[in-house]
Amino acid sequence: MSERPWSELGFVSLRTARFIALSVLVLGSASVGWADDPLPSWNDTATKQAIQAFVERTTKPGSSNFVPVLERIAVFDNDGTLWCEQPVYVQAEFIFARIHAMAPQHPEWKTQEPFAAVLKDDKSGIAAAGEKGLLELLTVTHTGMTTEAFSQTVTDWIATAKHPKTGKLYTQMVYQPMRELLRYLRANGYKTYIVSGGGIEFMRPWTEAVYGIPPEQVIGSYGQLAFEMQNGKPVLRKLTKVGLIDDHAGKPVGIQTMIGRRPVMAFGNSDGDLEMLQWTTAGKGPRFGLIVHHTDAEREWAYDRQSHIGKLDKALDAAAAQGWTVVNMKADWKQIFPKDLLSPDRNR
Amino acid sequence: MSERPWSELGFVSLRTARFIALSVLVLGSASVGWADDPLPSWNDTATKQAIQAFVERTTKPGSSNFVPVLERIAVFDNDGTLWCEQPVYVQAEFIFARIHAMAPQHPEWKTQEPFAAVLKDDKSGIAAAGEKGLLELLTVTHTGMTTEAFSQTVTDWIATAKHPKTGKLYTQMVYQPMRELLRYLRANGYKTYIVSGGGIEFMRPWTEAVYGIPPEQVIGSYGQLAFEMQNGKPVLRKLTKVGLIDDHAGKPVGIQTMIGRRPVMAFGNSDGDLEMLQWTTAGKGPRFGLIVHHTDAEREWAYDRQSHIGKLDKALDAAAAQGWTVVNMKADWKQIFPKDLLSPDRNR
Repeated sequence: MSERPWSELGFVSLRTARFIALSVLVLGSASVGWADDPLPSWNDTATKQAIQAFVERTTKPGSSNFVPVLERIAVFDNDGTLWCEQPVYVQAEFIFARIHAMAPQHPEWKTQEPFAAVLKDDKSGIAAAGEKGLLELLTVTHTGMTTEAFSQTVTDWIATAKHPKTGKLYTQMVYQPMRELLRYLRANGYKTYIVSGGGIEFMRPWTEAVYGIPPEQVIGSYGQLAFEMQNGKPVLRKLTKVGLIDDHAGKPVGIQTMIGRRPVMAFGNSDGDLEMLQWTTAGKGPRFGLIVHHTDAEREWAYDRQSHIGKLDKALDAAAAQGWTVVNMKADWKQIFPKDLLSPDRNR
Repeated sequence: MSERPWSELGFVSLRTARFIALSVLVLGSASVGWADDPLPSWNDTATKQAIQAFVERTTKPGSSNFVPVLERIAVFDNDGTLWCEQPVYVQAEFIFARIHAMAPQHPEWKTQEPFAAVLKDDKSGIAAAGEKGLLELLTVTHTGMTTEAFSQTVTDWIATAKHPKTGKLYTQMVYQPMRELLRYLRANGYKTYIVSGGGIEFMRPWTEAVYGIPPEQVIGSYGQLAFEMQNGKPVLRKLTKVGLIDDHAGKPVGIQTMIGRRPVMAFGNSDGDLEMLQWTTAGKGPRFGLIVHHTDAEREWAYDRQSHIGKLDKALDAAAAQGWTVVNMKADWKQIFPKDLLSPDRNR
């Protein structure tokens, strides 16, 4: 039997996908398509049981909590929920790498902050530049070019960029239990979306290969675009003007604008996800909220209320008050990172 | 055999949908799932042949023009492409109806323009109010309320609102050949999107029932939203500040922001669709552009270069220069409007 649910098989022809769906039906088995445990990297704790119980009661025909397939929307934060965000957001590393790559064309950066600090890998110097400095770095590395040129830059970088502590590719610093959860939900008719504070154009080039989430199901922060002709060809140029900051209150706004329906399930890990969880779980009918709590200093990182990155304070209180499920990473996850090698080029 | 392709069956369980896909496979037939002609309301002209030839060469495994399922994106303008836009945009009729409905709470409107003109059904008075007046009408009827309240207003109105000339429901003033085309494309693995200058929140409540296009595949003009608590419950309130005007150059911008990939096929009918067609057809590999030319004064309307609504001038020249397919409504469409009664509540 296939290890992968049919919904991930979009890169084969529809006819073949149907044939595989048919094989699954004919050759045996439960609706999820796994021989046994769809969530093998999760320990058999209350957290795993809560997830499975919710999926079962929302997908079983005749259940009083049944949710029609078209309404099965599940939204996931990315940084700290689907992949590692420590010791610094991956997108920040991308920005620093771009500054290094662009430096030969900008000799003035050697003495000009915040660029000089980046070129010297001087973290405290970068921090000293504050929000204004970061915005300058973001503008220089993320705007002015066409969407296609930017996408190519991301694709090239992510293919080889490695985590500073583990030396693994960033695309291997994703959480295996969450990958299994994404697959499990899709196999049960849920449409999985990313709703991240990170850049929409930074995520889209690789989410399909790494998470099975296609570009049109990725919501993130974005700038405005200008449609224009360059050498007689239409292009979209990335502008500095903000379109959406998809964090905190921006998350439900992004969801409404891009999806137009309220999700049934929402997954986050920080205060930046609070409003998304509030919006999702305030809907009528069955709703599910989950917070990934980073509690494993040995295998990953342990951080919450006081953390600079991924601060989890108000949302942790809200989880207790609202009955959201909280993942205790140390106790609930048997394995954190994937054992298999992921190729970002799998689907191309 | 089922008349409707499996992709429209999202409202039944995934398992049932699989079973139906299985039945289609086992009980007979071609990949499209129809006994014979998938486009029965199209005359057998060069237009129909061009559409079918393109779909066949992009979906046939082994074809040099094969497009993987995940990349099969087709975008459709709405007003004048999927439904009637004469003698006035349907959304304008909605605005006028809302002004009438809200008038009892606004006695001052009896003497205040542009409201007074609307209440007297004085079309030239409304026209005289110009763009500023229209913006005022739009603001009063489309902002200030929550997204849920607005959606309910649209749902209630569209259930009974009728076309001023034909007396039919607006949801029956959709083009039957285009409905068949939407189904045919979906049955061939294309994901169908609306990309309209109309309001995103005005379309989403009914597109699923009428076109089989779910809210998350509807792109339109939108205003910004505010996330806030009302009586302890989170809501999204519609603001007057513009998010996107999804017309002309705004269409490729909306496509890139919401979908993040370039469509393979684009369908429009006016100069407002020109940039969307340019952006789509400038992509590498096989691309298809189509313009619906309103040429049938008897069964619908005949208009193009000089029309106030749905002006088709530059895009008609571009179609000739770029080799886009042009629908001659009078010659190419056997039937214009559906014979069957559509219920907007079909999927609810």
